[in-house]
Amino acid sequence: MSSSNVVSVYEVSLRDGLQNESSFLPTQQKLQLFDSLQNAGLKRIEVTSFVNPKWIPALADAEALCAALRPNPGVRCSALIPNAQGFERARHSGVTEVALALSVSETHNKKNLNRSVSETIAEYAELVPEILGAGLRVRAYVSTVWGCPYEGLMSIAASVRLVSKLIDLGCYQVSLGDTIGVATPLQTTSALQHFGGAVGLHKIAMHMHDTRGTALANVAAGLELGVRDIDSSLGGLGGCPYAPGAAGNLCTEDLVYMLDGMGMSTGVDLSGLVAAARTAAGFVGHSLPGKLHQAGAWPP
Amino acid sequence: MSSSNVVSVYEVSLRDGLQNESSFLPTQQKLQLFDSLQNAGLKRIEVTSFVNPKWIPALADAEALCAALRPNPGVRCSALIPNAQGFERARHSGVTEVALALSVSETHNKKNLNRSVSETIAEYAELVPEILGAGLRVRAYVSTVWGCPYEGLMSIAASVRLVSKLIDLGCYQVSLGDTIGVATPLQTTSALQHFGGAVGLHKIAMHMHDTRGTALANVAAGLELGVRDIDSSLGGLGGCPYAPGAAGNLCTEDLVYMLDGMGMSTGVDLSGLVAAARTAAGFVGHSLPGKLHQAGAWPP
Repeated sequence: MSSSNVVSVYEVSLRDGLQNESSFLPTQQKLQLFDSLQNAGLKRIEVTSFVNPKWIPALADAEALCAALRPNPGVRCSALIPNAQGFERARHSGVTEVALALSVSETHNKKNLNRSVSETIAEYAELVPEILGAGLRVRAYVSTVWGCPYEGLMSIAASVRLVSKLIDLGCYQVSLGDTIGVATPLQTTSALQHFGGAVGLHKIAMHMHDTRGTALANVAAGLELGVRDIDSSLGGLGGCPYAPGAAGNLCTEDLVYMLDGMGMSTGVDLSGLVAAARTAAGFVGHSLPGKLHQAGAWPP
Repeated sequence: MSSSNVVSVYEVSLRDGLQNESSFLPTQQKLQLFDSLQNAGLKRIEVTSFVNPKWIPALADAEALCAALRPNPGVRCSALIPNAQGFERARHSGVTEVALALSVSETHNKKNLNRSVSETIAEYAELVPEILGAGLRVRAYVSTVWGCPYEGLMSIAASVRLVSKLIDLGCYQVSLGDTIGVATPLQTTSALQHFGGAVGLHKIAMHMHDTRGTALANVAAGLELGVRDIDSSLGGLGGCPYAPGAAGNLCTEDLVYMLDGMGMSTGVDLSGLVAAARTAAGFVGHSLPGKLHQAGAWPP
């Protein structure tokens, strides 16, 4: 178990957050959010997805956005790629890292990637060496680890096999997704112990959704075990737009507030994040599910 | 530390939740919510406050409400009382338990109870024997344990002294309030160890607010230490009405969802609570901060 008090926050609002928005945010607004995020101290920012714009119109400006980014020294921009075509677009975009997506649920994988899990792994087995050969880092998501909207509870052993395979291929880290926000703490501890046993928790990130309010409690359980890589989204961007308080992604400010209070070091300035979350709420035109930007940091 | 898997949920929506609402809920609607709560399996329900209606008009129907309650066998109704006058109203109301309020912060106590902390303790020292003599149970809240909006961080030692005093007086339980929702897990663990050392954690309840999203993570920390009494509010009623997603009280359904997932037994039926929370949102006329009633229980 890690005794380090340094936690690395991987920011997903510009990709995982905005892809759920019904409206297209102008590239200029995305750039402003990116600058707010990096100026607040975030060092790892997933900025877009090189997916077919037909599927996710909200991210149709991937090339233009990447070309216009001006990352501060030490800031790493990554982009999701669903397949080899996505990588062809990403490799010349300026990002220094890509993220691969995969679900442990066959049904969820098929709906998201239009191929089976084994076909996806086979494609990534060819793709990862190419990515590494091009000098980019590569990370992977395994989705629906704690449950699938179509298949219900998933096998942790099956996820462990996928994670081991992705690490063997050369991914530096695999982010475990509680895609529909159903995990609870003891179950999370037990699951993480299996992943830690297989690849080491230093290779594992948590990507918890707050759909049922348990994301931070699960993160706290992970921290206790030694996980030090957490994905989150500014303002909790990526909640379900149909209900104002409905939540998807774990909120970055809420996460950093908790980490600060636990004596963990993130290098992130909370007041900058709070301001950025309020700006983001204005851009998307509705309230965001995150709490801290509404309540304010404390002590003030 | 307790190894029991039984958690007692103390429901506060009808009092702590509704007292923050700007509109007055008709007594008939409160009765309907009460029935939903008890039919879902909640056994301890704080139904109102015998405070001067001038201060909290939303609870002005305390006597009428209590007279109309028809608690199921085993259901205990309690009411908050701020002072001896409150107890005079409560003692003939039919409730079998009262809850005393107190803050560790002098400023907060003064604003809420219009007297100093030591004056409040002196009054309760006379009042508690009277309550017990009348055959009622008595519980106490200590507010602002983790922080005060006026005085900032509070001394845990000072709260421990108040809790010890209240237990000595004859309160069967003291509920520790994170009144402004600022606590984080490690700090909570440390604080609870002090209370446990002084009076035993079986005498301690947690009353955590979710203002910054950390309530369930703090509860998980408390459960790990052995706390088995948690306060919560249907739908998270008691959030700040000025912002749709802003949260106050920990949400009962979200709590029970987490407890179910952790193998804890509450005797509460989640689907009944989810339906009740949706009804409550309709009654108050705005969305509530709780998550589960928006997302739905899982597995469905």
